[in-house]
Amino acid sequence: MNMPRKGNLMDVRQDIKVLDATIRDGGLCNNFEFTDEFVLDLYKANVKSGIDYMEFGYKASKSMFDPEKYGKWKFCDEADIRAIVGDNPSDLKISVMADVGRCDYKTDFLPKSESVIDMVRVACYIHQIPAGIEMIEHFHALGYETACNIMAVSQSNNDQLMQALEMLAKTNVDVIYLVDSYGSLYPENASELAKKYIAAVEGTGKQIGFHAHNNQNLAFANTIETMSYGLSYMDATMQGMGRGAGNCSIELLVGFLKNPKYNIYHLLKFIEKHMPALRAQGVNWGYDLQYMFTGLLNRHPKEAIEFTNDNRTDYSEFYKTLLDNH
Amino acid sequence: MNMPRKGNLMDVRQDIKVLDATIRDGGLCNNFEFTDEFVLDLYKANVKSGIDYMEFGYKASKSMFDPEKYGKWKFCDEADIRAIVGDNPSDLKISVMADVGRCDYKTDFLPKSESVIDMVRVACYIHQIPAGIEMIEHFHALGYETACNIMAVSQSNNDQLMQALEMLAKTNVDVIYLVDSYGSLYPENASELAKKYIAAVEGTGKQIGFHAHNNQNLAFANTIETMSYGLSYMDATMQGMGRGAGNCSIELLVGFLKNPKYNIYHLLKFIEKHMPALRAQGVNWGYDLQYMFTGLLNRHPKEAIEFTNDNRTDYSEFYKTLLDNH
Repeated sequence: MNMPRKGNLMDVRQDIKVLDATIRDGGLCNNFEFTDEFVLDLYKANVKSGIDYMEFGYKASKSMFDPEKYGKWKFCDEADIRAIVGDNPSDLKISVMADVGRCDYKTDFLPKSESVIDMVRVACYIHQIPAGIEMIEHFHALGYETACNIMAVSQSNNDQLMQALEMLAKTNVDVIYLVDSYGSLYPENASELAKKYIAAVEGTGKQIGFHAHNNQNLAFANTIETMSYGLSYMDATMQGMGRGAGNCSIELLVGFLKNPKYNIYHLLKFIEKHMPALRAQGVNWGYDLQYMFTGLLNRHPKEAIEFTNDNRTDYSEFYKTLLDNH
Repeated sequence: MNMPRKGNLMDVRQDIKVLDATIRDGGLCNNFEFTDEFVLDLYKANVKSGIDYMEFGYKASKSMFDPEKYGKWKFCDEADIRAIVGDNPSDLKISVMADVGRCDYKTDFLPKSESVIDMVRVACYIHQIPAGIEMIEHFHALGYETACNIMAVSQSNNDQLMQALEMLAKTNVDVIYLVDSYGSLYPENASELAKKYIAAVEGTGKQIGFHAHNNQNLAFANTIETMSYGLSYMDATMQGMGRGAGNCSIELLVGFLKNPKYNIYHLLKFIEKHMPALRAQGVNWGYDLQYMFTGLLNRHPKEAIEFTNDNRTDYSEFYKTLLDNH
């Protein structure tokens, strides 16, 4: 698709928003068991660094997931968020994620006027789009900003994806996310997809976001390439913390952005205080060969995560097994 | 510059050559002290995997560098290469690097007919181009394939770079390399530079190559992006081994390429046997925050390498110091 880049490497684009998803996607690495100190320091670092949104976690159904078995950020109770942010007297907005089919959305959300949450991001697979839209309209009616994260786009049928985007373009959703769940996109096809999303919402005022995974070490590259064609809501996490190979590193993204409102220094202070300690506790994430294989083969990283948890290093055998099960 | 991509993500491009630079660039991490077993296994893995070139190291001047103080691959004596490859009865070609100003090139190279070396790559900074051309013509006259690696291109004046390319286009050099020595290029400006190199040699039959550094975790991304616009000689190393943040990982590149001649399996066998052992010995390379900073600031990684060697993790202080000395 022929579409020029928006801005250039020196421009400040005021439309760009950085969303820190460390607790939410990173929580998948440690069962959401972050200390309050970690979350409070992260909040403060994000505020000081000019980050636009901080995602506190999931609003998972307590009838489906036992709160005894997970850290509190899988559920994001209003009181727990307020214990960190008070009334959030800052420019940082707060988001939570609600999965289609795993969220008691009709009962678990207050009206926006009573909540410190600013945005609800609805995550769904492409076949769940109608269910996702129902949730989006519910959250919109409650007064929240809304987003729709269409997951695993690299496995979606192109016609269905175009239909889904057409449906979403008619809703009240504010942001639609291109989500490279398996880290299988290259800058060349990620940016072609980005152009399709942009074209689908033209004239609606809706924004497009990007959520990367780093299986092929392309999370940052895909983030800035898709951004260059007009995507504006960019997900990132501290040192790329996130399931499996992780996400786009927020320090790389903030280093790249030219808007003087962003300040990398406070992110670095946070990282050096907390991230090596997490790794020392055995919390695991980041690019490695096993994740490259699942990215390359465009499939869910679950087998690679098992390989990692089993401390295996027989990469060649694992690769052969993946090919057998393809 | 408006120039279409060459081929697409599914094409086999027969013009593409993969050069394994593990010993040469990786040697900067361990003073070229690889075991013979490592080098022999690497040679065998490259042959079995369909890799096109293997670079054995530098041809450094023994009057400038004491052979007692470095591993043998800083000098690449003919006898040492032959001890590994014999007469090299394979399709894998052998290259060595010769630095302008650090190589006794008039005395240290045999005629090609007496050597197992196939290609000599001349590395120079832009102000050394005339000296580099003299060496290139010397090696060409001896019968070698030749390449010119113009280093630190991100710090070069654009007019001078264009003049250098014009000069090189008139020589007998076979390949000109775009070298992102500081890992400071993004896919967006790396590919613009790539187009300029391509345009400069149009009609000469010369090829353009790319040598990445991974300071901003973009080595692989920049490699495949520049390749998509027609660059064809692509440098990579095992697990990205190379000075500081390292290079493009050969396993990512071979995973990406569609030519059935390449086979990732034997690379993986090599990696699992040798690379974790190297790291366990304390040999250090790969993306980390300190390298990101020097990439971002477009400067030599030497301070970041010191930071690494000193086992420091006070990233925020280091970043402030770099800004002070900018």
